[in-house]
Amino acid sequence: MKKGITKRAENYAQWYLDVIAGADLAEHAPVKGCMIIKPYGYAIWENIQRVLDTTIKASGAKNAYFPLFIPQSFLEKETKHVKGFSPELIVVTQAGGKKLDESLIIRPTSETVIYEVFSKWIKSYRDLPLLINQWANIARWELRPRLFLRTVEFLWQEGHTVHSTEKEAETKAREMLEVYRLFAENYLALPVIPGVKTESEKFPGAVRTYCVEGMMQDGKALQVGTSHMLGQNFAKVFNVKFLSKDGTEQYAWQTSWGVSTRLIGALIMTHSDDKGLILPPKIAPIQVVIIPVWAGEEERKKVFAKADLIARDLKKVHGINIEVDKRENMNLGPKFFEWEKKGVPIRIEIGPKDIARKSVIVVRRDTSGKESVAEERVVAQVGKILDEIQDSLFSKALAFQCGNSYTIDSWDEFKVIIEKGGFIYAHWCGNSRCEAKVKKETKATIRSIPLSQKKEIGRCIFCGKSSNGRVIFAKAY
Amino acid sequence: MKKGITKRAENYAQWYLDVIAGADLAEHAPVKGCMIIKPYGYAIWENIQRVLDTTIKASGAKNAYFPLFIPQSFLEKETKHVKGFSPELIVVTQAGGKKLDESLIIRPTSETVIYEVFSKWIKSYRDLPLLINQWANIARWELRPRLFLRTVEFLWQEGHTVHSTEKEAETKAREMLEVYRLFAENYLALPVIPGVKTESEKFPGAVRTYCVEGMMQDGKALQVGTSHMLGQNFAKVFNVKFLSKDGTEQYAWQTSWGVSTRLIGALIMTHSDDKGLILPPKIAPIQVVIIPVWAGEEERKKVFAKADLIARDLKKVHGINIEVDKRENMNLGPKFFEWEKKGVPIRIEIGPKDIARKSVIVVRRDTSGKESVAEERVVAQVGKILDEIQDSLFSKALAFQCGNSYTIDSWDEFKVIIEKGGFIYAHWCGNSRCEAKVKKETKATIRSIPLSQKKEIGRCIFCGKSSNGRVIFAKAY
Repeated sequence: MKKGITKRAENYAQWYLDVIAGADLAEHAPVKGCMIIKPYGYAIWENIQRVLDTTIKASGAKNAYFPLFIPQSFLEKETKHVKGFSPELIVVTQAGGKKLDESLIIRPTSETVIYEVFSKWIKSYRDLPLLINQWANIARWELRPRLFLRTVEFLWQEGHTVHSTEKEAETKAREMLEVYRLFAENYLALPVIPGVKTESEKFPGAVRTYCVEGMMQDGKALQVGTSHMLGQNFAKVFNVKFLSKDGTEQYAWQTSWGVSTRLIGALIMTHSDDKGLILPPKIAPIQVVIIPVWAGEEERKKVFAKADLIARDLKKVHGINIEVDKRENMNLGPKFFEWEKKGVPIRIEIGPKDIARKSVIVVRRDTSGKESVAEERVVAQVGKILDEIQDSLFSKALAFQCGNSYTIDSWDEFKVIIEKGGFIYAHWCGNSRCEAKVKKETKATIRSIPLSQKKEIGRCIFCGKSSNGRVIFAKAY
Repeated sequence: MKKGITKRAENYAQWYLDVIAGADLAEHAPVKGCMIIKPYGYAIWENIQRVLDTTIKASGAKNAYFPLFIPQSFLEKETKHVKGFSPELIVVTQAGGKKLDESLIIRPTSETVIYEVFSKWIKSYRDLPLLINQWANIARWELRPRLFLRTVEFLWQEGHTVHSTEKEAETKAREMLEVYRLFAENYLALPVIPGVKTESEKFPGAVRTYCVEGMMQDGKALQVGTSHMLGQNFAKVFNVKFLSKDGTEQYAWQTSWGVSTRLIGALIMTHSDDKGLILPPKIAPIQVVIIPVWAGEEERKKVFAKADLIARDLKKVHGINIEVDKRENMNLGPKFFEWEKKGVPIRIEIGPKDIARKSVIVVRRDTSGKESVAEERVVAQVGKILDEIQDSLFSKALAFQCGNSYTIDSWDEFKVIIEKGGFIYAHWCGNSRCEAKVKKETKATIRSIPLSQKKEIGRCIFCGKSSNGRVIFAKAY
């Protein structure tokens, strides 16, 4: 592990890697493009899973498990789908010492294999809606892997629903987008913009792709979650049909939606600073670290006992995770440094002088704000500060997003601003050729047509043709 | 789904499949050898995960995630290991449209890739013990797949620990075996016999493989969980070394241990009957189903309200999952039949007459025992019956295991009994050639040298040479 953390201003990409290494979240595997999620990083993922799993179940979906392997022929059934994924496919050609008659693809997403199965499960309108979720690993060949953001294998959740009407499917796709927005904002403290992808950016095979996009500290966009209205596209290919109430056979309407371990990348790049990781309390594996300060055996006993007592009270009242750092072979400085790099929201220092004064020192990770808190107020104050940190991280991220969002009407200005980073709200004629040309010239893509888009007559930032509203351009991860 | 369930006595293998289909637990995937775990089956797996994850964390292990893909060269480093797994390997040869320079194996188990990484994590004795667990999917090519018992892909938990002394590793291997024994007995109500595998049955690469073996209702053995003392075998191959307290570099001592979705197969085959699945309350997704009985709108309202009230009280007091079956388009018979097939431990029937009498009908799934319970006693009585069912399933399974265990000293008798099914405690000389010959003649293998083995001088059941104790022979899944 590297000792220091590169400053954001010096080298943002290296800073990102240093924060991950400093907090011991993950590392590159000895297998090309793959990642090892280390215990502290995995604990964040478990927290994400726990909250989302509960929310997804509350939405009516049930968990199930479908195969890792997809016969090549399944993938090829939906032409746009296979075209979208084929450059990234990972292919099994041998098994049990023999060449396979038909190659198997490691799932790059599971629509095809799941819908093949759904077509057998669904007979009549009584079987609908069918709401299924799966927690699984996914594999897509990546030539330029980046920890959490883009790896050959990653972990995710993929929901797949089947409905009897277009309206119901559309409502579900929007409902799940809202689940992701609320999760990002309320737990990750990550403000996101809900929108619709353009034709060229949508999921291969979808009618419409909804997304929530966040802004990282370098001004780049990161897609935090997506929810696809699949229409009847897959249903027609995989024969997902049902007998309607009036006795006619109809193709079903479908949605799929997912978020992945990429969320951890978003979390890191939204909040962390030049000292390392910063975690919102609601998703942190450890909310408070207590650092006892002592000299000699007698003090040690006394301070440890007090630290344990405070830890017990905090756990009991707030139901949070506390670490009491009792390591004896380590100095205070390195301890502070380590927990800072791990982004633990609150550090409590307690020594003999504090005990004498009946108080402790409480330090916030996000602001470095330090205060002495009377012992009897510690529990209440920690609860208050945790709430403040959660709120303040969100506000800060939102302020950053607002401060780096621009409404632009001139192409020259567009080119300057996009180099600086940030979101540009600009008019677009709706033509994907203009979109492609903007991308070619500036590397910026249309992140979404925001759901909050207002009707406003204007001219396309690139070609000058008429437009009815602004879309969001940005460089993206 | 088939309506009826084949009787065990008629065709045991078909009965097993019928129970799975009847309870809607799983089905064969459209991908060769793979399985789809359906929501009700997956809910059982989630319960298994929840309990085991808590226990494993309490043992000090932390969860992490390692790659699905293993470079072929890693697997080949440990010769016995690769020899053991090579017939089952599933091989990726292409990715991103190109042939790979080195083939990737889909993990058949993760020792090799994890220990390659551990060798970099571990520097000194201060880094030990290292206790890691992973929940993951595993793939092994199977020509004769059976749902839950043997599938190309399955889900499991694999623990991997590293220690500075042989004794500590040995203790950990035994500790985790005990975790599995307690889990099987206390949650799955499945009595198991802890033992050690013979040389020919042990994990490829291990020094010693501990196992817990259960007896299924056809008298066959099923390995419920294993814990391997790996010694320094992998450490020497993957350079898992540490600087000891006295400053010398030493190879570490390792263990690995796991249980899989196979546990669900064991659960089914231990308790279920000719009417379908029977689940122990502690692992059932639903503990109680309430079936309202009514005629007409007025009765419906009254009965539903009462059912909801009872459900609420049961949930509140016992923290269990209750289903109130309010389906209006289904008769009582099919409802009873469905929940019976799903193995829900308790069924409560409630109709207008019961309301008038201030009582309900309570039916046990395991014994079909039916009783009228006064309303004010329902909550207490359901708690009592759930405990009784849990205990009684265990006792019944234990009695079956005892009743089908034989102490045999004659080879002729051995051959007769082994055909009947059951565990045979017999003397064995310790020679793997005898073991192989017994297997060839009878299909029985040595399931384990039980940890409870008593020193007893005898003669090998096959060759007559001297032996110091009895081992367990059985046909196995």
